[in-house]
Amino acid sequence: MKKNKKPEDFMRLAIELSRQNVVNGGGPFAAVIVKDGEVVASGCNQVTTAKDPTAHAEVVAIRNACAALDDFQLHGCELYTSCEPCPMCLGAIYWARPEKVYYANSKEDAAAIDFDDQFIYEELDRPLSQRKLPMVRLLANEAIAAFRDWQNKSDKVEY
Amino acid sequence: MKKNKKPEDFMRLAIELSRQNVVNGGGPFAAVIVKDGEVVASGCNQVTTAKDPTAHAEVVAIRNACAALDDFQLHGCELYTSCEPCPMCLGAIYWARPEKVYYANSKEDAAAIDFDDQFIYEELDRPLSQRKLPMVRLLANEAIAAFRDWQNKSDKVEY
Repeated sequence: MKKNKKPEDFMRLAIELSRQNVVNGGGPFAAVIVKDGEVVASGCNQVTTAKDPTAHAEVVAIRNACAALDDFQLHGCELYTSCEPCPMCLGAIYWARPEKVYYANSKEDAAAIDFDDQFIYEELDRPLSQRKLPMVRLLANEAIAAFRDWQNKSDKVEY
Repeated sequence: MKKNKKPEDFMRLAIELSRQNVVNGGGPFAAVIVKDGEVVASGCNQVTTAKDPTAHAEVVAIRNACAALDDFQLHGCELYTSCEPCPMCLGAIYWARPEKVYYANSKEDAAAIDFDDQFIYEELDRPLSQRKLPMVRLLANEAIAAFRDWQNKSDKVEY
């Protein structure tokens, strides 16, 4: 099944898409998802162009790949991203479960052009009470009912 | 502009949606986004129903709210989520920049019904070389061109 393409070929495609995305008015980020030596899907940063703060390259590529594969998991896939993923994208990657991630630019490179996710990494490490973003707990006693519903549901699709 | 609704009212709506989502075949999670005392948008977990591993309640709600507000930021908004956000959703929340987050179930409650994001928190804290998910750097010398393109672009939309 493996074609003759190398990891460098897929990363070059991601880099090419990241440069094209700047021309198209988006951020300088793109990602490509590969399975069995073939490109399954790609994605470019569309935060400002699609007005969606979650539309980072990796998230867009994961959504596109899952649609292409008709699956909510990326088992057996490799993800090539032109830049080291931010915490949101890393989380998305862990939930999607590809086998391996290749990246090119580092988060330090990204910080140098003012895409700085260090603040988010630091916030995630802080206890909720010490975060800059206020997070307040409310109605825990009522919300737990949804979890009991889930536990009691016999035909649920787990993930 | 403020209506007479209290935080508890919005959280009750999120809880109601989370329970309805279980009935509809999705995970037991929902979120509501509020601005000036009015509900702007909501979102339910659609991972398995939409076959999208990024479709957690908070991400769906953020996308819907940004579409409703025609903006890629949620300035002045509050996010009500039926469960403490996972690292992906927290990242999305930081990028979307709402003012405040209310949550009901805790991540410990979620772990008790096998939605365990502790593994992701731990992975994010590890140096790349020590993560269970292999992350390999490739072609950094070529990818940096996209960042130079971005720096040199005079009409870019920053975010």
